[in-house]
Amino acid sequence: MDRIIQISQLAITSPGKIVLLVMDGLGGLPHPETGKTELETARTPNLDKLAEEGICGLSEPLGAGLTPGSGPGHLGLFGYDPFAFTIGRGILEALGIDFPLEKGDIAARGNFCTIDGKGLITDRRAGRISSDVCTKLCEELSRISFQGVKALVAPVEGHRFLLVLRGTGLNPDLADSDPQQLGVPPKEVVALGREGEATAAVVNSWIAKAKGVLAGHHPANMVVLRGFARLPHLPSMGESYKLNPVAIAAYPMYRGLARLVGMKVVDCGRSVEEQFATLSKHYAEHDFIFLHIKKTDTAGEDGDFKRKVQAIEEVDAAMPQLVNLKPDVIAVTGDHSTPATMKAHSWHPVPFLLHSPLCRPDDVAEFSERACSKGALGRFPALDIMPLALAHAQKLTKYGA
Amino acid sequence: MDRIIQISQLAITSPGKIVLLVMDGLGGLPHPETGKTELETARTPNLDKLAEEGICGLSEPLGAGLTPGSGPGHLGLFGYDPFAFTIGRGILEALGIDFPLEKGDIAARGNFCTIDGKGLITDRRAGRISSDVCTKLCEELSRISFQGVKALVAPVEGHRFLLVLRGTGLNPDLADSDPQQLGVPPKEVVALGREGEATAAVVNSWIAKAKGVLAGHHPANMVVLRGFARLPHLPSMGESYKLNPVAIAAYPMYRGLARLVGMKVVDCGRSVEEQFATLSKHYAEHDFIFLHIKKTDTAGEDGDFKRKVQAIEEVDAAMPQLVNLKPDVIAVTGDHSTPATMKAHSWHPVPFLLHSPLCRPDDVAEFSERACSKGALGRFPALDIMPLALAHAQKLTKYGA
Repeated sequence: MDRIIQISQLAITSPGKIVLLVMDGLGGLPHPETGKTELETARTPNLDKLAEEGICGLSEPLGAGLTPGSGPGHLGLFGYDPFAFTIGRGILEALGIDFPLEKGDIAARGNFCTIDGKGLITDRRAGRISSDVCTKLCEELSRISFQGVKALVAPVEGHRFLLVLRGTGLNPDLADSDPQQLGVPPKEVVALGREGEATAAVVNSWIAKAKGVLAGHHPANMVVLRGFARLPHLPSMGESYKLNPVAIAAYPMYRGLARLVGMKVVDCGRSVEEQFATLSKHYAEHDFIFLHIKKTDTAGEDGDFKRKVQAIEEVDAAMPQLVNLKPDVIAVTGDHSTPATMKAHSWHPVPFLLHSPLCRPDDVAEFSERACSKGALGRFPALDIMPLALAHAQKLTKYGA
Repeated sequence: MDRIIQISQLAITSPGKIVLLVMDGLGGLPHPETGKTELETARTPNLDKLAEEGICGLSEPLGAGLTPGSGPGHLGLFGYDPFAFTIGRGILEALGIDFPLEKGDIAARGNFCTIDGKGLITDRRAGRISSDVCTKLCEELSRISFQGVKALVAPVEGHRFLLVLRGTGLNPDLADSDPQQLGVPPKEVVALGREGEATAAVVNSWIAKAKGVLAGHHPANMVVLRGFARLPHLPSMGESYKLNPVAIAAYPMYRGLARLVGMKVVDCGRSVEEQFATLSKHYAEHDFIFLHIKKTDTAGEDGDFKRKVQAIEEVDAAMPQLVNLKPDVIAVTGDHSTPATMKAHSWHPVPFLLHSPLCRPDDVAEFSERACSKGALGRFPALDIMPLALAHAQKLTKYGA
């Protein structure tokens, strides 16, 4: 918290433009056969050229050994200490679908799932039902009514939906009902403190009614909930950094996160090509552009090494479009590592490059984990990225006389 | 303190096993004739192989320029901020000999020493008397009695003993009587605050009586005391990290330190061979094994470059026994540097290697100060070692959604 206040006191308006390109889950681990990571395997002539002209390092989202979720990973990139500012999963989901949250609302992320005759979970994603089916089921669930509390249900994508409870005296300190494993029943929702007991009772009652509604809708015949949360207060990026920021992100959570820190969020297609085209379209109006590419992470989570390599190559191929705009600062990194060999987020630091006419280039001539580990920025906290970007765009004034 | 709480909130039980091998005082300085440090001089094919397959760096116990004692050096390795948790020398000595301390006890480390006719110290270690002689002298000193305060004396090893004062209202904030130099008399014990004045008087009176008892026992004809302290409270490693930790350490102080952070301390021989055999014997029962080798430090303190080289080579020769157990994480480092050319602990950062199937290897192919300084971990705080080890053994869960 202190850090962003310090930076905000030095922030000034300047014509400099910053593009922060985040390839989600960019960092990787060596393929057992080749000894090369996804990024080391990918052919990336454009990123390599930026690395050669720029300065590189390895960014550490939370510090040694700690693995971030998507929320903390991005907050750090935006300069908000992820330990000082926390955002519940439910809130992120709500923001990502433009759900009009009101003060005091409690939001949770829901999954449709499949249970067997004994009530045990057999598929945590209900056979990955389509978004259309999800929308229809959410309409049915929206009819569940209570006295005093509104239970709003909105589809997110595939098997995922949002539950929002609206009423007085609700408390978000509740444990998940999602056991995150198969062969067990969904858990009762338990309050983490006395103040949450009434809310837990409402949620459990809603779940029981939802089970009834869904009984005939196999494979989506049950729900699990997690990440109960209330809207946090975060200072706006625009005010903190005296920027006019815009987010180009296709995936709901990242759009929500960008909105939470006060970025304008514009429509963009799903493909890398469409996202880069959207960047060109909005480039003139903004001095900070956050471009979020999801497919690197998805491929990593799926354990698909080759697809992650392809996703990186696809981004590299689109880079000339960005480079030709000649931003004062291009920063390229990830919010965390997602090695395909681990099929999960990991703690490994993330390759980072900063390209700017004002940077002091190092000897790194290739954008990769190994090369970046020898970069002049060394291994550094992700929280340094915003001050570095702002400085190179001449948006930070001198500290002290 | 915050850091270990943070880590403890993310710690989870996993089958992964961690071995932390600490060669005390491992780091060194170049020999003036060869330009190579002790570790660079030693032939260490096994450690070099681990470095080649693993990731390396230089660990900094307390930060730039600061030299740690053994207590802070080890606390840092175990993940306890050495500035937040302090342990007096006397307490470490007491724990190391299994002395049954009671709440409120004040402990100090004692040395038998030699004084000349003028009362000036001529040998700070009383000619390194045997442990047998030490035991007999401690028995004599145990007969010294006071009203209201018990003065308990126990032998440690060689010229070293433990003094424990037991009574009500005692205060440990006392300066040492040990001047740590020759040609001067032992100092009066001075209270560091008003609250310690009564205790200082008791200690000075005990010293005077001890001098009388020892008068005829040249070369052990006097005592010096240092490190007055009371038992601190440290969270247990087992609880903090959800581990079942064991310490294999031959030297009393390190056994005491391990016990203080809640490790099980097992019997082991004095030789490197016996210590590695003990490791094999207890490996199955534990998921964290701290193996402490003292002789590297002892050789360094004695200024014996060659003996330190030999000690390192001896450990390297034993490494296959450890490697063959295939721990998920092998971390090798020291608690600080003890360059033979300095004959003392120093502030120089300490070579560190981490070997794990989940590590991201760097280009370091040799375990040495120079090679590690080019490792991907860079120069990093020793406090990062536990989170790194836990992460690579998959014992830390993700932070945030």
